[in-house]
This record gives sequence, structure tokens and C-alpha cells, in this order.
Amino acid sequence: MSPESPDTAMLDALIARIEVTDPTVAQAAREHQDRLTKPRGSLGQLEDVSVRLAALAAVVPAPVPATPAVAVFVGDHGVHAQGVSPWPREVTGQMVANFLAGGAVVNALARQVGATVRVVDVGMSPEAAAVVAAAPGLDRRSVRAGTGDITVEPAMSRAEALAAIAAGAAVAEGLLAEGHDLLVTGDMGIANTTPSAALVAALLGADPAAVTGRGTGIDDATLAHKVDVVSRAVGRATADGVTADDPLGVLAAVGGVEHAATVGYLLAAAAAQVPVVLDGVIACSSALVAARLAPAARAAMFAGHRSVEPGASAALAALDLVPLLDLGMRLGEGSGGVLAVPVIQAAARVLAEVATFDGAGVTDKTAGQE
Amino acid sequence: MSPESPDTAMLDALIARIEVTDPTVAQAAREHQDRLTKPRGSLGQLEDVSVRLAALAAVVPAPVPATPAVAVFVGDHGVHAQGVSPWPREVTGQMVANFLAGGAVVNALARQVGATVRVVDVGMSPEAAAVVAAAPGLDRRSVRAGTGDITVEPAMSRAEALAAIAAGAAVAEGLLAEGHDLLVTGDMGIANTTPSAALVAALLGADPAAVTGRGTGIDDATLAHKVDVVSRAVGRATADGVTADDPLGVLAAVGGVEHAATVGYLLAAAAAQVPVVLDGVIACSSALVAARLAPAARAAMFAGHRSVEPGASAALAALDLVPLLDLGMRLGEGSGGVLAVPVIQAAARVLAEVATFDGAGVTDKTAGQE
Repeated sequence: MSPESPDTAMLDALIARIEVTDPTVAQAAREHQDRLTKPRGSLGQLEDVSVRLAALAAVVPAPVPATPAVAVFVGDHGVHAQGVSPWPREVTGQMVANFLAGGAVVNALARQVGATVRVVDVGMSPEAAAVVAAAPGLDRRSVRAGTGDITVEPAMSRAEALAAIAAGAAVAEGLLAEGHDLLVTGDMGIANTTPSAALVAALLGADPAAVTGRGTGIDDATLAHKVDVVSRAVGRATADGVTADDPLGVLAAVGGVEHAATVGYLLAAAAAQVPVVLDGVIACSSALVAARLAPAARAAMFAGHRSVEPGASAALAALDLVPLLDLGMRLGEGSGGVLAVPVIQAAARVLAEVATFDGAGVTDKTAGQE
Repeated sequence: MSPESPDTAMLDALIARIEVTDPTVAQAAREHQDRLTKPRGSLGQLEDVSVRLAALAAVVPAPVPATPAVAVFVGDHGVHAQGVSPWPREVTGQMVANFLAGGAVVNALARQVGATVRVVDVGMSPEAAAVVAAAPGLDRRSVRAGTGDITVEPAMSRAEALAAIAAGAAVAEGLLAEGHDLLVTGDMGIANTTPSAALVAALLGADPAAVTGRGTGIDDATLAHKVDVVSRAVGRATADGVTADDPLGVLAAVGGVEHAATVGYLLAAAAAQVPVVLDGVIACSSALVAARLAPAARAAMFAGHRSVEPGASAALAALDLVPLLDLGMRLGEGSGGVLAVPVIQAAARVLAEVATFDGAGVTDKTAGQE
């Protein structure tokens, strides 16, 4: 087969394993929720989360997730050469060392919620990889040493995108085999909000200016330049014949290796009927790709928080997912997703543990009022 | 002394123990936050919470709270007779039984975050009290068997309000003596969103229609009636000579016994320099009273969530507190406050545990860009 039509058997098989949720289970969960000793609807989004968890698990109530894990997929980006980030490229590797030493924000938040942190190199540059060449604890699954500069060439080949999807799926399957029952997306890669914005712009046909943000913090002039970079990347992909109805093509054209790995991670969680919490714009843009490849995968996705990045909100709106937290965060690493873990656990606990009106001998309010 | 000028020595002494936080500690906390290995500002509200926790504890970093507790103050309300709630009055007692059995939402959420639940009768009606007359585990500190109907008489005397404040303060001090290092407010009392709205309207001079909500869920006609009830209560208090610059007078005139206990709980937490998480409108209206009595007490208050009740948002705006969660919740019991506990713990952990750029050998970004 040619490089432009690689073997998609793995992806096809993964997608085939993702089942559509049964609406009667969601209905049964909603009815049980309405019998709990509280005014109906008084827990707002927690009620919706509990219903979605039950539908995903195909049982009422869903088990309460007890052993969360976050996978931090690491990649570098050729588009960094365009000056879209004030951070030098070696910071990707330095931050990986920080993750492995337990010193980063995602580590502190993971300790708070009892989550395991798995750091996975899927696409570090040689400079970044050199920083952690001998580091134990790094899950080494590199598919490509950094992407191409998406303003002038594809990020990667379709075959590389498929390999990264397979790597991400394998990480999810490994975590599930270890007993983890709630997955969180994480990412590290200096400049990776640029391909995220390009993915959202390309897949939604959105104006790059509306979906490109300040990332870790850039000034107005750099933001204007970044919008231009995203526009050129999307234009270059279009000129190459890539269309929005080809999500794998868009991913390879303007994405990142960590995005591709996240796509596989999301699809594998969905195939296993395990909830997966989206962090920020890297996760949300990857989730758009995953949902285009397999619409049923959306049932496994929970939006951990509303990132400051506008592309994240655009992607979540397109996915019809409502974020649980809105704390003005824009760090990445999985930080916002990890912080949402107790909210998801709490939602599951309510449906699983709260007494019913009948069971607790509590008088329900006057019938007919809501 | 006359019933209208009772002994305020306990309250005066409690207020005198509340120290103003040192702005140099907050500044030092902010500077340390800016050295952590993440883009400055990228954790949004978490950074502000970490700074406030350090200022409150007067040490950088603040200790990470490890043993949270929620006190559920229970009271009944004479204004229930005005038809402001669809729930029968005995539900207050039935829900107390549910709390003691561990079957309510606050219990499930407390188990999720590792919080102790303390249920305290400060003002149950005889009907409600009868339901749990022999129940073990109830902390019995009743000051008055339900309030007066605030549309026609004061909720309680000033002496009773002071006694309830003392009871709430004693509960906080007891929990702190047991080693709890993060307190959460909770409440139970059918009809208690009505006095909450009246407190907010009276203290802020707000239009009752703007600060009165649907509570646990009432229809449009009942809401219109409830607004009228709140207006009449505030008008009655004004006619009795109660003014907004007399917070104890407002509390006694249109509040509830559980509100008064919450005021004492908040003041005692502030005096001990321990953070206290506000739940919904009962807590937020009580916090307004506490901050009028002792402005420095605000430093200990953290808004757990944005309740659907408009009075909660009005009170939080007046207190200049930004809620951490916004999940469309309107249950009370302490549920929204308990759910915010991991966010506060996470904020403290970040400042206490995350590596600095220097310490981790991570290159800071180009100077001058933000």
C-alpha cells in the first residue's frame, strides 16, 4: 500500500468495538435519580453526569470510579520555529523530567485526587528527548521526533498518525488492565496550542481568529502572528486536498503526535465503556477528531473544565459537552481534568449511595409542583 | 439588662480574636506562586485561593488541609405557615434522620472528600424534633423551637440570636479541637431560603424580587408569593426600627436560628485562622451578617459554589468572593461546599508542593512577556 493509504485495520477494529449507549439505561438512571432524597434537579450538572456514567457503564447505578489515572502524552512541534511560543523548545523535555520527579502541577493535583500519572513520549524532539534520555519512569512510545512545521508541510504522515493512535490506545488499555477505572487526558509539548487551534479551525470550518488563544501566555502581537500561522496551516492543508470530512487526514495535516495519541486513548476508553475526562484545548481538539472518527465515542467523554483557550470552548460546544469546572485555567498537563475527578466520582456516588424517599421515610413534596 | 440589650460580651470577645491578615504574607505567597514551574497565572482561581490560604494562615505556603468537616445546622421557620415551600415541615426532622443514617447527598459527598459530617439541632420545631427525639449522633444545642413568622414578628430575640451564634462558634471550636483543619457550612430547614432572601434584601437594601429564588423548586405563582412574603418581612422589620447598620438586629428580625449558628461558626473559624467553605444561600446570607459584624472575618471565607439562588450571588458579590464551582446546584445541606473541598486542597498543594523553575532546572520563558 502507498504511504497515502496505510493500513487502517487497527483503527477500524478499535472503532468497531465502541458501542452506542442504550437510551433505556439513561432513562432508568434518570428515574432513579428522581427518587433520591433531594428536590428533583437540585444537583444540576451532577445529575446529568450520574446519568451519563450509568449509560456508559450500561448499569444503574454505575460503579463509583476509585482508581483514576492521567496519561500525559508528550510531543514537539515543528511550528515552534514560527515563533508562536515564548518558551524554548527544550522546556518540553525539562517538564517531562519535572513530571517524572513529581514536581509539576499535574503531580500535585494527582496526589490530591489519588490519581496515577503516566508520562508517555510519543513525539518529543531530539533536543527534548536528550534531557530525559536516561530517565526511568518514562513510557517510551515515540512515533516521530517532533512534527513537521504545519505552515509548510504535514505534521506527520497518515501512517504516523495511525501509529500514534495505536500508541495512545495501548496506553489506555494498559491503564485499564492495571485496574484504573477513570482516565484523564494530559499533554505536554511547547507550542501545542497552535496545532490544537488548527485542528478546531479545520474540522469546524471556524475562523482561526475565533479559535486561537494565548496558550501559556503571549502578547497581542504574538497572538496576531499565531492566528496568521494557524490560517496558513489550514490553508496549506486545504491546498494539499485535505477536507474536513477526513478526520484522520486533518489530524495528520495540522495536528500533533500527542493529539493523535490522545485520539487513540479516547477511543480505547470508549471501547471499554470507561469514562475519560478531557483536560484543555489539546484534549478537546483531539476529542473532535475522535468523535468524527467514531461518533459513539462521545458517550465516554466528560469535559473536566473550561480552558481559557477559545478553541476548547468551540470544540466542547461542537461536541455538546458542558465543562464541570471553570476556574480560568490554561496550563495543560491534564491539570484541569485531574481537578474534575472528584466531581465525577461525587456524581457517581450520589446515584449509588443516596437513599430514596421511600427507603428513608422522607415525605416527598406536594405532587405536581416542580 | 432588658431583652432588647442582652449581654454581647461573648460576641465581642469572639470578634476581638479575629485578626486582619498581613498583606506582606499575601505578597510573598504571590511571589512564590510566580516561581512555580508553570506559566504565571495559568492556574487562574487556584492561584488566588492559594494566596488567600497563605494570608489566612500567615505562612507561605499554608498547610494543606487534610481533615475537612461540615456542620449541618438545623432549624425550622415560622414563615413556613405562609406557604413559601411545597415541602411539609416534618421533612426537616426526616432529613436529619437521613443525615444521621448517612443516606443524604451531603453524606455521600462527604465520603467522597473524606469529610466528617456533624449534624447540629439549633432550632428544630417540636414536630421535626419528635422525628429524631431518640436519635444518637445528633448534636443537641437547640436555642429555640423554630423561629417566629417573620412577616408578623421577629424570627427570634437578640438574646436568642446571640445564643445561636455562641452555639455555632462552639461547634466550630469543637471540630477544630478534634483536629479538623477545613470547615464547611451546611444547613437544613424547610423554608430557610425565605429568611436567607430577607437577610440579603435587608442588609444590601436590595429589591426582594432580585434576591428571592425558587429554593428547592417552586412554581411561578409560589415564587411571586414568596417575593411578597420577603418584602413584608423586611417591611415589618423596618417598621420595628431595625436598620441595615445593625447586623445582629437584622439577623434576629428576619433570619433563622441556623443562620445565626452559621454566623458564629464563620466567626470562630476566622478567629482560628482556619478556612471555611460557604455552601449556598443560607451560608452566603449568614456570611453577610458575619462580615458586617467583623469585616476581617471575610479572609477566612471561601465560596464553594454558585448556588442557583439569586440571593447567594448577590451576597457573594457584596463580599467580593468568587465561587469555585458553578454546577447549577440548589440543594443546601452543605453539598456545594463539600464538593469544593478538593479544589481548595488542590490550591494549597500547588503552592506547597510544586517545584520552582530554579529548583527543577526548567527554563523560564523569555523575560518581559506575560
